[in-house]
Amino acid sequence: MTPDWIALDWGTTRLRAWAMQGAQVLTSRASDRGMGSLAPAAFEQALLDLIADWLPEQGRMRIIACGMVGARGGWVEAQYRAVPCPPIDPRQAVNAPARDPRLDIRILPGLSQAAPPDVMRGEETQIAGFLAQNPGFDGALCLPGTHSKWVRLSQGRVERFRSFMTGELFSLLARQSVLRLTIDTAKPDPAAFAEAGASALTDLHAAQSGLFALRADALLHGLSPEKAAGRLSGLLIGAELAAAQDFWRAGPSVIIGAPDLTRLYQTLLLAAGAQACQKDGAALALAGLTAAGLHLQGET
Amino acid sequence: MTPDWIALDWGTTRLRAWAMQGAQVLTSRASDRGMGSLAPAAFEQALLDLIADWLPEQGRMRIIACGMVGARGGWVEAQYRAVPCPPIDPRQAVNAPARDPRLDIRILPGLSQAAPPDVMRGEETQIAGFLAQNPGFDGALCLPGTHSKWVRLSQGRVERFRSFMTGELFSLLARQSVLRLTIDTAKPDPAAFAEAGASALTDLHAAQSGLFALRADALLHGLSPEKAAGRLSGLLIGAELAAAQDFWRAGPSVIIGAPDLTRLYQTLLLAAGAQACQKDGAALALAGLTAAGLHLQGET
Repeated sequence: MTPDWIALDWGTTRLRAWAMQGAQVLTSRASDRGMGSLAPAAFEQALLDLIADWLPEQGRMRIIACGMVGARGGWVEAQYRAVPCPPIDPRQAVNAPARDPRLDIRILPGLSQAAPPDVMRGEETQIAGFLAQNPGFDGALCLPGTHSKWVRLSQGRVERFRSFMTGELFSLLARQSVLRLTIDTAKPDPAAFAEAGASALTDLHAAQSGLFALRADALLHGLSPEKAAGRLSGLLIGAELAAAQDFWRAGPSVIIGAPDLTRLYQTLLLAAGAQACQKDGAALALAGLTAAGLHLQGET
Repeated sequence: MTPDWIALDWGTTRLRAWAMQGAQVLTSRASDRGMGSLAPAAFEQALLDLIADWLPEQGRMRIIACGMVGARGGWVEAQYRAVPCPPIDPRQAVNAPARDPRLDIRILPGLSQAAPPDVMRGEETQIAGFLAQNPGFDGALCLPGTHSKWVRLSQGRVERFRSFMTGELFSLLARQSVLRLTIDTAKPDPAAFAEAGASALTDLHAAQSGLFALRADALLHGLSPEKAAGRLSGLLIGAELAAAQDFWRAGPSVIIGAPDLTRLYQTLLLAAGAQACQKDGAALALAGLTAAGLHLQGET
């Protein structure tokens, strides 16, 4: 079986590719040649290195891509679409220039919000994948990660969203601040996480006052690296949840991402009396790309 | 004139030395051989390289030091003194081991607080210098910096204190997070600082929600690096002030440090209706070391 189209999830650090026949995955591959390590002229070769044997000898191959590949400094800039709007519109995908005549690349744009200013690139395709599987969903999505996103969905549209630097803050503080002397790569202790998360949800200053205290607690009382890591994670995620409560207090939330991360968010939300369920995010980007691919196939 | 004692302010990145006769400075020198770059066995030579010609041919030279030189991993660990207590007690200075028989080194300990856990090392000597110049002061001190300290002083004693990672957070976010693409080393715009600082004092979530928005504002609306730097600084210092209001709402505060930094804190505090004055911190460590030096001279 040869693919009739190819799906790409091309982020800052990774490129994942699926050979598709309609909605069916024939095979998939991944590489570490993410957008962050490529100059604009290098994208085509990075793609060919991964999937050249999926291409026909003649004729064009439709390739649908999402993620940072469409950022300024990526292969080609795909201008943001402004919310409120459906998460993706395949007709607004941007053609990427290629020398190989077989490549017909369409990059899906990210979303922007004018005020408060915010952007996303890649998550919109996961959201589209979620909506394809849950048509008519009305409520909040949370996509935790380096830059967490809270999203309000209604009638198939992204109404508004808000980003938090929670994941990046955790990495910087744990590994590069004075707290590295205590935490570094220690695995967060779940009980310490839950306690600190609950305190950050009720004491709005905990995320400010509680950071240096982790180092002092280790020096004075021998706080373990695992407990310090758990508390840091709890302080930061708890502060994010406190600042996003207009999203999750209005109704049920779905937390989308890697299970070890979504579980943390769910733990704090349930303890705060909210309704929240988890959904593994790995397949959702492909589901969104598939929705776009089938839409475009239907047009041609 | 030959010195009769020597004062050292030996921090993580710098060593400053003063040749003293009583309370009078004969001369001073500095080097970049801070505690952070020295193994314990290397401190003696680093000191001799800077001030060997200040030592007598025979006899001992009293040397009083403060700062990270007394940390675990420094020359010798000077155990913290627990608050509430006077900021320094020269009799509790710790002797550092030296092969050169002329060196009589006394390292002043830092302060600790059991709950909430907190520590300081170096600032206690600046506080002692402030108290030597302002005996009987009753109120709050703020020592902004990499790890800002808020301190409650009463009857010559440090009653309690609280540390914030504000300066380190600013550096990490401006230069190492995604915000480096917008800010890096740009100089903060004062008007953007004041506006963001006021918002962070009233909206307790601004420091969470406002960070990624700086990057988005630059991408969507061309926010300048200077305005982004000003807003980041305002968000972080405003959040510190909100979390430290039990210190500055109770009465007048004195902000001690470099004038370009203390001015920022004063601006926001005055705008919030608080009483706050600035004091240049450069001379205060020496004033505290001098108080300790004279005390010990009076004893021998």
